[in-house]
Amino acid sequence: MKDNSSIGEWDEEIKKLCEKINRKKEYYTTSSCSGRIVLIKQAEKKQGGLFLFRTHKKINFKQLKNELLKAIKTNKTDLVYFRQEPCILHVACASLAGAQNLLDSAKLAGWKNSGIMASSSRIVLEMRSTEFIQMPIINLGKMLVDDKFLKLLVKEANRKLERTFSKIKKLEKLLL
Amino acid sequence: MKDNSSIGEWDEEIKKLCEKINRKKEYYTTSSCSGRIVLIKQAEKKQGGLFLFRTHKKINFKQLKNELLKAIKTNKTDLVYFRQEPCILHVACASLAGAQNLLDSAKLAGWKNSGIMASSSRIVLEMRSTEFIQMPIINLGKMLVDDKFLKLLVKEANRKLERTFSKIKKLEKLLL
Repeated sequence: MKDNSSIGEWDEEIKKLCEKINRKKEYYTTSSCSGRIVLIKQAEKKQGGLFLFRTHKKINFKQLKNELLKAIKTNKTDLVYFRQEPCILHVACASLAGAQNLLDSAKLAGWKNSGIMASSSRIVLEMRSTEFIQMPIINLGKMLVDDKFLKLLVKEANRKLERTFSKIKKLEKLLL
Repeated sequence: MKDNSSIGEWDEEIKKLCEKINRKKEYYTTSSCSGRIVLIKQAEKKQGGLFLFRTHKKINFKQLKNELLKAIKTNKTDLVYFRQEPCILHVACASLAGAQNLLDSAKLAGWKNSGIMASSSRIVLEMRSTEFIQMPIINLGKMLVDDKFLKLLVKEANRKLERTFSKIKKLEKLLL
């Protein structure tokens, strides 16, 4: 698949779902991601500058290989992880009943890692699907796997990304 | 690290935390896992017989290599994933306020993927930490990575497992 993705275009896959949720009086989305593929430096704590690459679209072997070669050039001392993340959505809800309703739909659509984060001031529903890959891929400026592995990794990451996209569509259809 | 783990011993790391929670009138645990390392056949749906290996203890290179060689012998047609999972705990709660309290402690202890699963009949808190590795490791009866990679993988999986264990201890201490 030819793909020239860049940050900013990513929301296409989840845009309609967000719009549908935000049209309802009782909900508003506070953050969303359609699922993505990233290269990220390993670090004990979250901090700026860890991401070496990210896309919200499917990837191909050539693209991944190029990004890895770039990452190798600039990171001679780090451990770098490849990660494919599922769709995730945070929705502020006016009531617990409303949060429960949306949670039920999310579970039905396959967003299995979902739950309500209630506090005295606010009810936020976190909805997350399950498609995930996370593995070391570069260490000390050296590639840890061969091209054959990379080709399978691309296939698996794209398969999981497609699955996460289909769950977005499924939830979109379930909501009235 | 020498390790002869077997299923059944796993609960040691999370046992005290479960006991502490179950001593409180308002909570009871419905399932728990201290974190684990598994080899599992890729399948679109959950089904029996997918697990080829699982341990709730840290692993060493020799042990992992042996398990992979066994898996290769018996799985000539499957894609097999290596997975290291974080601690996870489900707690039924008598009230939403009680669930919120425990959720706050869990977040504070670093169990970041946690949320309340409320329904009209029951309030269940799902608490999960974030340490995770998931990657293809065998395909069509062939090892996808070399020993050097496996050694790094063992190191990373053990590091993440230790981190997940320390979060169990942290939550245990936070609860009165």
